[in-house]
Amino acid sequence: MSARVLLPWTDIEVPEGVEAAYYDGDEAVPDGLGNVEFYVLPYDRGPEGPKLIAGLPSLRVVQSLSAGVEAIVPLLPADVRLANGRGLHDLSVAEHALALIHAAQRDLPRWFAQQARGEWTREHTRSLADSRVLLVGYGSIGRAIERQLLAAEAVVTRVASRARPDEDVHGVAELRDLLPEADIVVLVLPETPATRGLIGADELAALPGDALVVNVGRGTAIDTDALLAETRTGRLRAALDVVDPEPLPADHPLWTVPGVVITPHIAGGSASFYPRAKSLVAEQLRRYAKGEELFNLVER
Amino acid sequence: MSARVLLPWTDIEVPEGVEAAYYDGDEAVPDGLGNVEFYVLPYDRGPEGPKLIAGLPSLRVVQSLSAGVEAIVPLLPADVRLANGRGLHDLSVAEHALALIHAAQRDLPRWFAQQARGEWTREHTRSLADSRVLLVGYGSIGRAIERQLLAAEAVVTRVASRARPDEDVHGVAELRDLLPEADIVVLVLPETPATRGLIGADELAALPGDALVVNVGRGTAIDTDALLAETRTGRLRAALDVVDPEPLPADHPLWTVPGVVITPHIAGGSASFYPRAKSLVAEQLRRYAKGEELFNLVER
Repeated sequence: MSARVLLPWTDIEVPEGVEAAYYDGDEAVPDGLGNVEFYVLPYDRGPEGPKLIAGLPSLRVVQSLSAGVEAIVPLLPADVRLANGRGLHDLSVAEHALALIHAAQRDLPRWFAQQARGEWTREHTRSLADSRVLLVGYGSIGRAIERQLLAAEAVVTRVASRARPDEDVHGVAELRDLLPEADIVVLVLPETPATRGLIGADELAALPGDALVVNVGRGTAIDTDALLAETRTGRLRAALDVVDPEPLPADHPLWTVPGVVITPHIAGGSASFYPRAKSLVAEQLRRYAKGEELFNLVER
Repeated sequence: MSARVLLPWTDIEVPEGVEAAYYDGDEAVPDGLGNVEFYVLPYDRGPEGPKLIAGLPSLRVVQSLSAGVEAIVPLLPADVRLANGRGLHDLSVAEHALALIHAAQRDLPRWFAQQARGEWTREHTRSLADSRVLLVGYGSIGRAIERQLLAAEAVVTRVASRARPDEDVHGVAELRDLLPEADIVVLVLPETPATRGLIGADELAALPGDALVVNVGRGTAIDTDALLAETRTGRLRAALDVVDPEPLPADHPLWTVPGVVITPHIAGGSASFYPRAKSLVAEQLRRYAKGEELFNLVER
């Protein structure tokens, strides 16, 4: 019997009776994939992994290890189920959001620049404690961010696409009224027609001076030109793991605006992701082999 | 009636019947301080503030706004009471400890250097989540750090000068046995004869490779030469807000060791400190005026 599951890593427990082939997105595609039913996409390895979907005629399930699957959906035949990596990145993304917030509030770029010059000049900084944080996107990642913000004694206001009054979550329709009271706005939104361009010139103008705009969701949630305009004048600050476009071109003016911190879309990919991802895949394979319901299925 | 309390800030509520003079450590010392009984030292302004103690013949109480008062104690007449700033800096120091840890684990210096070059090159990083953190110093700042570490799903082991088995706190005598299991060591220790040089060559050698040494207490807790040796080879990493000596001389080799992050002793001085400090001083003045017991008295 030839391969029935195609996996990105060799150190995943495969149930009895299931044969595995391996493709990590970097090496050559293995032969004999005609009967692959369950394909775990290589994680964070560019377009080659998703392209392979078209060459798997027996495919039943695609398991993505990303939370956002907007690029995968158009590639799937109607009868192939899609599961995402919801939850695997929560901690990794959340802690990177905190890293970006701390870096901006505590002036880390300044101290690192001084360090390179051997300069010991001290000055007091902003703080995260007591800051009013507007958390826009209140799914599993948003909740993980919130726990860390509350432990740092920030004051959190929750916003999601739909209001959930029982959980004290405001709807996105209230965003404009909430922005003037925010010292820090954290965006943790998937890319959807509703989130694209959500933060434009008007929303940025509604923020108080010196506010910090943080984005660890999708870059398209912010109008980049509008953010550039508001940060260039020094009125707003930004700490961004995602931008629009990605990669940000080398000559893009946003790179060098004082008060803007940029990391290259690395929030989800830290060491704590891998053990969680491998556990999920092993459990999904076990469930698939037994005919049980899979976790993290995406409706489409 | 002339001044009976000497304060560093003018926006502090002073009880009825008490007259205040002001000295912020930068301006000239005011005249007529012969009957000052209660002196709130200027915060983080160098040696001029403490020197003034010798010129206050009616002094009854010195209120420091720092947690560490080792430099003040030798300057005090035996009958003058000393209160410290314990608690005021907890959140500020704790969040800076988190900022340093995140910066080191998530490679922030690398991304900021890339940003300066307009370079979008991605790589996965270490994580704080799941990391085993040895927290050395378990007072109020240590507890504030712990809350934030636990919210980030790190695994914390507590160490203090004395073991407190009922609180699951190990004594410092067990340090050598605990170091080999630590991915991150966070030092939050005051300077005392027992803490000076606590982390020397042997202790550093006991840490596993790639471990991160974080210090937000006093620089003298670490043998700088030993740390330099272990970080220069790349075996250990460090994230330091305090060093020995301070200021670190411009030509000190520690400044430029890869994997070493240095900030210039700024952990305690962030925005969240000031409202807390002013509230404490107002409350202490109220208590002093009424003859009530003061907070934060230091035994000596």
